[in-house]
Amino acid sequence: MPDTPILPNPDDPRLTRRVTGTDQTGASVDISVVEERPLTIYLNRQEIVTAMTIGDYPEYLAVGFLRNQGMLRDDDVVTRVDYDDEIETVVVRTERETSYEDKMQKKTRTSGCAVGTVFGDMMEGLEGLTLPRAEIRTSWLYALAQEINTTPSLYLEAGAIHGTVLCQGDRPLVYMEDVGRHNAVDKIAGWMFRNGVPADDKILYTTGRLTSEMVIKCALMGIPVLASRSGFTAWGVEIAREVGLTCIGRMRGRRFVCLSGEERLVRDADPASVPDEDRKTRRKAAS
Amino acid sequence: MPDTPILPNPDDPRLTRRVTGTDQTGASVDISVVEERPLTIYLNRQEIVTAMTIGDYPEYLAVGFLRNQGMLRDDDVVTRVDYDDEIETVVVRTERETSYEDKMQKKTRTSGCAVGTVFGDMMEGLEGLTLPRAEIRTSWLYALAQEINTTPSLYLEAGAIHGTVLCQGDRPLVYMEDVGRHNAVDKIAGWMFRNGVPADDKILYTTGRLTSEMVIKCALMGIPVLASRSGFTAWGVEIAREVGLTCIGRMRGRRFVCLSGEERLVRDADPASVPDEDRKTRRKAAS
Repeated sequence: MPDTPILPNPDDPRLTRRVTGTDQTGASVDISVVEERPLTIYLNRQEIVTAMTIGDYPEYLAVGFLRNQGMLRDDDVVTRVDYDDEIETVVVRTERETSYEDKMQKKTRTSGCAVGTVFGDMMEGLEGLTLPRAEIRTSWLYALAQEINTTPSLYLEAGAIHGTVLCQGDRPLVYMEDVGRHNAVDKIAGWMFRNGVPADDKILYTTGRLTSEMVIKCALMGIPVLASRSGFTAWGVEIAREVGLTCIGRMRGRRFVCLSGEERLVRDADPASVPDEDRKTRRKAAS
Repeated sequence: MPDTPILPNPDDPRLTRRVTGTDQTGASVDISVVEERPLTIYLNRQEIVTAMTIGDYPEYLAVGFLRNQGMLRDDDVVTRVDYDDEIETVVVRTERETSYEDKMQKKTRTSGCAVGTVFGDMMEGLEGLTLPRAEIRTSWLYALAQEINTTPSLYLEAGAIHGTVLCQGDRPLVYMEDVGRHNAVDKIAGWMFRNGVPADDKILYTTGRLTSEMVIKCALMGIPVLASRSGFTAWGVEIAREVGLTCIGRMRGRRFVCLSGEERLVRDADPASVPDEDRKTRRKAAS
């Protein structure tokens, strides 16, 4: 566990840029927009992917992506992770000889759309998966939502970005943001893998929708609870129910909906005592 | 041009599903969630991609995807488009013999993340691209936003979905929704290609962020104006300025920001006369 939570750094000059334009009155405005840059990930000698990212925590993004693609195993020993910001490349090196020509060929056949690919590859990992019993108190959910929504972030600074937060009880541990919502999840997975952090008592909070891919990633990461302020897709709910993942969505102020894994919910808070969201921190359409 | 606009059909039983869960009080709730299903696209004999989609307009999605990937040329004659809903496959057949083994190999090298791939492929098409002069009146922007936000849609019915609307002047022509925001754009591209609709006097409105990929797609489609209620990324703005695309974002009520192609804007409306968005139709985080 980190002694102090890992939080967004909206003051990092590499993550946002001031851009000048005009507003509805024709007046000149100077606004902050998030950066978006390519990062090419290698596993040993093989080029695997180029992702578009804001560019923070490239090592965690690389390791987490490979982990969530099933290219890094539980027992893999990562010997080195080298990031070169000039050529925007990360090389992850493992003790084990790796070759994913087949997997890459498979991508060729079924990809062009990451969701398609990733999905095809990831479904395989779900058979026989059982998620740990755990309890999730509604008082934690309310405390987490309130804290996450008011934590200084690139979202509050510049908007147009997604956030994913690894939580334990009512405490946010790692809050990652990225232009690609899956990158934010992968950065969390990379942090967990590099620090050997157990998943069974964690909650994954995301600002994004609970689609099939998001549900599958959370399940493969071994995290029993997935919460979001956004909505669901039918397939996401179906898979969550199959693997026994607790899925809570549409978290806004006192309101939320649980469509899967209800048995983990402990209703220890009185919703009526929860204030509505402050307009300033209410998220607008991010995607 | 369609005589009547093509609009979302929230009553189509194939696009949403009723799912039962519990709300914050523990009461049982029965909510509507959008479907999400794979669609595999073939170009003649070659399997190209599997996309996750709500499943409406599969033929337009297939043709538009291939078009936006540069696999269908302006002068290509599409002889047949066959959709098989049992095996969730669309086959697009052209007069011209096509083979994109190289492109697919390239995907292998740079993909796993569609944005990465698509981006890599699409940048090529931008050199020497010039977008048509056109005017975009602020009165149109306000009228479009108001009409689009209040049109019955899957978003208003079930949330967790993106919308893209092809507009001409102050009239929405084609309003597509999808779980993948790029699918919604591709369905529009497919509709335009199949119906030989010119792009030079159109406006593309999206609920999604103005990222590099969205800007590139709009530019390659030849549409001079891209508008969104969401925000920008730095690279999206940079590319829009390079290709001379008018980019308008953060459209909410009377407010908007123009960060590129200001010269096309005609400020014929008094922002002060524009009402704030109705809470009911204000979009929440969709992504």
